[in-house]
Amino acid sequence: MFVVSRVVGVGNPLQVLNNILVKTDQGRIKLSSTNLEIGVNTWIGAKIEEEGSLTVPAKLINEYINNLPTDNVTLTTQETVLNLESENYNTNIKGLSADDFPIIPQVSDEPFAKIDSSEFKDALSETIWAAANNETQPEISGIYFNFEEDKLRIAATDRYRLAERVAVLKEPVKMMREVIIPSRTINELYKILGTGVGDVEIFFSESQVLFKFEETELISRLIDGQYPPYKEIIPKAFSTNITTNRSEFIHALKAAALFASDSYNVNIRAIPGEGMRVAASSVAAGENTTLIKSEVHGSENNAIFNYRYILDCLNNLKEEKIVLKLINDASPAMIEVEGRNNYLYIVMPIKI
Amino acid sequence: MFVVSRVVGVGNPLQVLNNILVKTDQGRIKLSSTNLEIGVNTWIGAKIEEEGSLTVPAKLINEYINNLPTDNVTLTTQETVLNLESENYNTNIKGLSADDFPIIPQVSDEPFAKIDSSEFKDALSETIWAAANNETQPEISGIYFNFEEDKLRIAATDRYRLAERVAVLKEPVKMMREVIIPSRTINELYKILGTGVGDVEIFFSESQVLFKFEETELISRLIDGQYPPYKEIIPKAFSTNITTNRSEFIHALKAAALFASDSYNVNIRAIPGEGMRVAASSVAAGENTTLIKSEVHGSENNAIFNYRYILDCLNNLKEEKIVLKLINDASPAMIEVEGRNNYLYIVMPIKI
Repeated sequence: MFVVSRVVGVGNPLQVLNNILVKTDQGRIKLSSTNLEIGVNTWIGAKIEEEGSLTVPAKLINEYINNLPTDNVTLTTQETVLNLESENYNTNIKGLSADDFPIIPQVSDEPFAKIDSSEFKDALSETIWAAANNETQPEISGIYFNFEEDKLRIAATDRYRLAERVAVLKEPVKMMREVIIPSRTINELYKILGTGVGDVEIFFSESQVLFKFEETELISRLIDGQYPPYKEIIPKAFSTNITTNRSEFIHALKAAALFASDSYNVNIRAIPGEGMRVAASSVAAGENTTLIKSEVHGSENNAIFNYRYILDCLNNLKEEKIVLKLINDASPAMIEVEGRNNYLYIVMPIKI
Repeated sequence: MFVVSRVVGVGNPLQVLNNILVKTDQGRIKLSSTNLEIGVNTWIGAKIEEEGSLTVPAKLINEYINNLPTDNVTLTTQETVLNLESENYNTNIKGLSADDFPIIPQVSDEPFAKIDSSEFKDALSETIWAAANNETQPEISGIYFNFEEDKLRIAATDRYRLAERVAVLKEPVKMMREVIIPSRTINELYKILGTGVGDVEIFFSESQVLFKFEETELISRLIDGQYPPYKEIIPKAFSTNITTNRSEFIHALKAAALFASDSYNVNIRAIPGEGMRVAASSVAAGENTTLIKSEVHGSENNAIFNYRYILDCLNNLKEEKIVLKLINDASPAMIEVEGRNNYLYIVMPIKI
């Protein structure tokens, strides 16, 4: 129920779009919602005595069901009213006819790709927050999916930073395919994956994608356009490699952030033989410097970063040993996880 | 630190009131803050090498300390700059001279009363949310404390409802005393009590109260005025007593609330031999009725209540067996906990 109600809006002038479609479907109850961009279907077990369908306000039914004690409930439709009854309660929810509910498009019957849900979730969690969060550039407001053989390459960028993760599919795809999926769809998918276990099936039509997981389907339009050729900006060589501890790096950035004031600027200096120095200062607040003991290979180096861009990455990794690679104070820096070659994060320094 | 920084404001035009006073004090560090109505002092252990004091921005130092790894830190003052240094970091926080910090008044040396912190916390949690939350009527915007012998009677009301709890003091007070304490003070006290264990000492001066718990003191002005003679409105007799289950009552009220829409009106009917029926309806949403099996003594009875007023009480009780007492649809109703005679809650029905 929760899965379905999240997609619909509240206060949409077209009332039926604030509603969930409740419908008997081959011995189960099918719940559907759509905001015309994303649609969700989910099925729940039931004993069907008579076929029926209607739509009810999503917010109301969701709050109602969340508050319900767990016992058996009988659902009956009386024209556009949904009656819910059990031993102790009796409820009538005013709804609308199912006829007015928009049709959620069907997508092909044949899954294009299959991926383990936990592999998928890990890959999404390391990338999707890097997408541009306004839609003036629609291509980079979405998440890039590139299927090739048994690999799904997921990328997100806002032109100041880029995250890329390669996930492993359950079996090779029959043909290469690249698509851009709206961020909102992927965020919804991430919630649907939740703590579930199993395979996610991915289906495509010309302009739609469908994800199927457990008893739930998520359908979304694709974003039209060409994803920027981001491979070109990934540097091939660096002057300095810093192997450091993720949690200590987070602590140091947060401490520095308090003194960076309005600028978000934090200075990172690699000092061979000593470690990494994270520092910020402002006229009003004062100054802060943290030295993190780290292995530094290569030359002494120094660059200024927006600390939020680095924290976004560090906060979404699990491993503690990470590598920061620098060229100079004007070229892209890279973060990788030590011992894992399926992930990279590129971030541009700030030129002062 | 957290205890102290919560009292101060942010963005007070008088900068020193956004600051915390840091001061060496007899081998410890004393931290103080005040908003001129409430003051907090707390002490932390330290090895003092030289006496010193200054004030630093509360928000900054609090966020800084919360983010600090737990190791030893050396504090040094350089004029109005506080330097914090450990093996790995070095921080200068710009502050102000201690001379400009307002004096937090001293209250008498002799505790007026002493109470176990968990008894005190329980009593506060069952009452303080019932106070009026605007200050047009200053007396009832505060919490009433009445000390007599070994009892502390705590009451709060907004004229539509009243909560009263009698707590037990550790020893009888030497003289009877009644005061009104600002709600904000009591809410702050509640947080200071936290999960700590031990006695709370209560001190008074003419117009101030001081609570002392563990290493922390909370000082506040008292509210001038006469608390309403609320005893007069507590009914002596009822027509109907309903003994029911608190959690089921909460569930039923929340379900009804979804259908009460904008009115907050929920109908409660006591049906002897059957139980308590909780119902609400609206033209837009529909209707909901829950029957809770309950022991009903006395006559069939019926009244309409603002469900939020009943939930406030039920949500703050721990016991499951509660008693709702009704007279009729225009007279105050009462909620008590079965088997406990130190608590009562009065709520006025809504006349339609």
